[in-house]
Order: sequence, then structure tokens, then C-alpha cells
Amino acid sequence: MSLTVVGSIAFDGLETPFGKRERILGGAGTHFGLSASFFTDVNAVGVVGGDFGDDEWAVFKRHHINTDDIEVVADGKTFFWQGRYDYDMNTAHTLDTQLNVFETFDPKLSENSKNAEFLFLANILPMLQKQVREQVPNAKFVAMDTMNFWISSMKDAVIETIKVVDCIIINDAEARQLTEEPSIYAAAKRILEYGLKAVVIKRGEYGATLFTNDGYFVVPAYPLESVFDPTGAGDTFAGGFMGYLAAQNEVNDDALRRAMVYGSVMASFNVEKFGTERVDALDYPEINERFKAFKAMTHFDDIPFEKAISA
Amino acid sequence: MSLTVVGSIAFDGLETPFGKRERILGGAGTHFGLSASFFTDVNAVGVVGGDFGDDEWAVFKRHHINTDDIEVVADGKTFFWQGRYDYDMNTAHTLDTQLNVFETFDPKLSENSKNAEFLFLANILPMLQKQVREQVPNAKFVAMDTMNFWISSMKDAVIETIKVVDCIIINDAEARQLTEEPSIYAAAKRILEYGLKAVVIKRGEYGATLFTNDGYFVVPAYPLESVFDPTGAGDTFAGGFMGYLAAQNEVNDDALRRAMVYGSVMASFNVEKFGTERVDALDYPEINERFKAFKAMTHFDDIPFEKAISA
Repeated sequence: MSLTVVGSIAFDGLETPFGKRERILGGAGTHFGLSASFFTDVNAVGVVGGDFGDDEWAVFKRHHINTDDIEVVADGKTFFWQGRYDYDMNTAHTLDTQLNVFETFDPKLSENSKNAEFLFLANILPMLQKQVREQVPNAKFVAMDTMNFWISSMKDAVIETIKVVDCIIINDAEARQLTEEPSIYAAAKRILEYGLKAVVIKRGEYGATLFTNDGYFVVPAYPLESVFDPTGAGDTFAGGFMGYLAAQNEVNDDALRRAMVYGSVMASFNVEKFGTERVDALDYPEINERFKAFKAMTHFDDIPFEKAISA
Repeated sequence: MSLTVVGSIAFDGLETPFGKRERILGGAGTHFGLSASFFTDVNAVGVVGGDFGDDEWAVFKRHHINTDDIEVVADGKTFFWQGRYDYDMNTAHTLDTQLNVFETFDPKLSENSKNAEFLFLANILPMLQKQVREQVPNAKFVAMDTMNFWISSMKDAVIETIKVVDCIIINDAEARQLTEEPSIYAAAKRILEYGLKAVVIKRGEYGATLFTNDGYFVVPAYPLESVFDPTGAGDTFAGGFMGYLAAQNEVNDDALRRAMVYGSVMASFNVEKFGTERVDALDYPEINERFKAFKAMTHFDDIPFEKAISA
């Protein structure tokens, strides 16, 4: 089944302890779409400027992502974000943000994008997310992201959007901020009460947790000795998660669990190089090998214990 | 097979956001021994003062822990620690430490304790740990704990002790401090190079990771909405881990994985009430039910993915 993603397409300027890139392809929609494209057909909805070049379009084309709904504002400039990571890779220090054409982004969905069975609302203004969601009334499964900025400045709007989706994929700090619950378990329960089928909480180097009304599932992060560039890891996770689900016949507990693992697999590759470099170059044997590595590092046999009675 | 533990036996004064206890049974040796006693025969080696009362001895007796090697200094006082936890339960604020009889603790092992096949060296002076380890030359599997204080004040002595054991069970901050490696994966590799069979890194609310020369295994923490009192969680983990191993015929990868889970099971109970209260009252059906819950929250089917070729 096909999957539509609405989100930013950007240029990123990045600096990490391992190197520097002046201006490379980035953005939530990009990272998500690229990751999801390994699993299903993807329609990307976004906006770029006239500076978006052949090399950038080639990344989308190479992965058969439908770019019909990426609007080009010929006399505008593409969204630009510049950030720096120190050794604590969990925190990005923003050095510059130029919204450019993204400032007036008005997502326009073609019939093709509207007919997708799966929809992902990457991190954009919550009211826009809701408008897009309403344009895809027959979607089978809709997930959203959000961010601390919207939660602090317009929490009600964020909640109104949560109420019309099936799943939210956010990090632990955002879950705590949204619910004012210190425990992520309590936070996830509260968020489920808005009527969601699933709450996914990303915990960076500690992995991710899935909460449903039936229970929870925990997947650790892949044990990398060094994270090269964490930019886009969360969106790459979401892309693997939603892409895998879209490729299944049914969104059930088993599929959601494997989707969590495929999301983690894709995110673990994303952070190995700058920007989209690593995921762009991925192949299926690598993906399935790492999936097996996740199985190997979490599997144990379920053998109950009974102590021999001592004298 | 039997298991000997050498460590503190104490009174704790505790304050958490959920309540207060003036003076309850505690200490690393106590928490470890109590937890391990559900799996195997335990010999406790320690020292207490004349103030150690019938109620305290009863806890050991109730769990068939051999107390022959707990020395009683009739005119001395038992080690006392007083601490407070705020809402961040990961950090204990020490309010008072009275070493009392523990200050001159000189572990004396009976033949019975020396003949144990499994040995745990709880957090005491590293030179003492090494002396004890040398008194149990035929032990099949020896594990140790340590703490930031010893690592900063006598790292060489800690390392000399690491070199004569099979396994170290420490938290992530200690692993980083010991190796000066920011990544716990790099840190664990470095520690394994001292000749260990296993390195277990405890990560509090994020679970625990096992590193061996064959690979790694990750177990999440049990998702508790609130941690009532974290005192002794690490030692309770170690008790479940070592106790389970001691009850097996062989220390192999499968047994180590299940030991990690039983350790996590026991620790998850420990934090539900003050001090030893919860583990003291545990039964096997509860333990095995929680073990199954760990299986349920980490299991997924290993089904490789191949995308249908799109047109």
C-alpha cells in the first residue's frame, strides 16, 4: 500500500566532532521518505526553492519517491538549517534557521497523495497537519510527529491534531512535556487516551518503546560505538516504521513490533554517515542483516524457573 | 550450586517522595543475598553490630540464607546509611554515613563459603575483594561490583581485582569513568580486554546490557509508572543474575541472557516498596509471571523483508 509524507525538504549545514558539511540534503520529509522507500511506494509532499538541484532530485528519483507534490518556488530558496553537535550527540545546537519557502508552506495533495492508505505528518505546524489529515479521509493508518516548540506555544492545537490520527511518534522529552507526567509510561497512557492506537516514544541511544492498548514493546538502539551524525534519525525511524507497516496487509501487534525494529534498523544506519549518505546507499541484505542483529541482541528463551527445594 | 556473597549488611534511613523509613534492613550483601536466595543456596559473609535484631535475622532465616559467616561485633553498631531521593530517582542524596563495624570489616570465610562454586564481591574496598576472591580459588564463576569512589581514588586496585574475576556488574557512569570512553559499547569492550567473560552494565530505568566476547544482549527495565524506592536495585539485579546462573549446569550464552532477565525481574520488584519489603514477600509464580512479561515486551518474529518490485 502507498504512503504519503508531508514535511520539510531542506538543506542542512552540519558540524559534528567527526566533520563538517556546508550544505547537504536534509529535512524531515526527505529522511522519512528515503527510509520508507525501501518498504513501500512513497509520495512526498513539500516545497523547495529554485536552488534545489539535480543532485537533490536524483536522491528522490533513485528511490522511486513520487515528487509530483513537491512544489517548486522558482524564485525562492529552500529551507536551510545549520546545526552543531558536540560529543553529546543527543543535543543539536541550532546555529541558523532560514525558513525561506517553507515559511508559507501550503501543502497541496494530488489525488494520488490523497488516496494513500498510510499518511505521515512530519513535524510542521499542528493546524497544517490537521488540514492535511482531513484531505486523506480514507487513510487506514495516520501517524504524526511534533516538537517542543509547538507543545509549549500551542498545546491545544497539538492535541486537536493528535485526536484525528492513529499514532504519534515523539521523543521522551516531548511526551513528558505534553502530559506533564515524569514517567514515560504514565505519559504514554495519557496520550493513548486521546483515542490513539499506538504511541511510539523515541529514546535516542536507549531505543524506542511502543505503547498500545494491549501493552508495550521495547526495542533497544543498535549499539554503535560512535554516532557520526544524528540529524534525521527520528524521521528515518518513522520512515522505516510507517514504510514497513504500509507494506503489510494489516496493522496488528506483530506488524507494529516488527515495524519498531525496522524503524530502529533504518535509524541505526542513518547516523553512521552525514545526512542521507548512508541510507541512500543501503541495500536489502544490509537491512535484513541488521534486523537479524536486533533479534540476536534481544532474544532469550522463555524457560520458567523453579528452585530445587533445599534440605 | 551454592553462591557466596561478601558485602555490607546495614540499616538504612530512607526518604523518597512516597514516604520515609527511619531505620530498615539494607546493605548490598542483604539485597543481593535475598534476591539470589530464590534461585540457589546462599552463604552471606559480612559483619553486624549488637544492634542487629531478631527481625533482621529473621529475614535471612526465612530465605534459608546461611549466616554462619556474618560476624557479630556485640559491642559495635551496624553500618548505617541515610539517604534521600527526589523525583529523579536515579540520584541518591547521602545525608549520613556511619561505617561503624563495617569500617574494620575483615571477611572471614568458612570452608562452606570457600567451597561455593559461585562468588559475588559486592561493593567493598577492591583490595578486600581481591583477598576474598583468592580464598575461593576453585570458584566456577566470580562477579564483582565496585563504585565511583574506588575508581577515582584507587583505579589500579580496582583493575587488579577485575583481572581475577569473570564478570563485572556496574552502572554506565562507572563504566565510562573506569575506561574514559564516552560510549558504553567502547567502554565494555575495553573492560572485556582485562580477561573477563562478561561485562554487565546497568542503566537504571533503561535496563541493562550484557557484553561477552561473542556479542551483546540488551534487556529493558520493567515499565513501572513509579519507582517507590530504588535503594538496592543494583544489588537485587546482581542477586537474581548470579543466583540464576548458580542454579544452572553451565554458564553459557543462553543462561547469561536469562540471568540478565531474572536480574531485571528481581530488581523491578525491589523498587516497588521500601528496602527489602517487596522481595522478602515474593513468590515463584510472581517471579515467573514477570519473566513472561519481559518476554512479551521484547519478543518479535524474525521475518526478513523484501519489497515487491514496483513498476
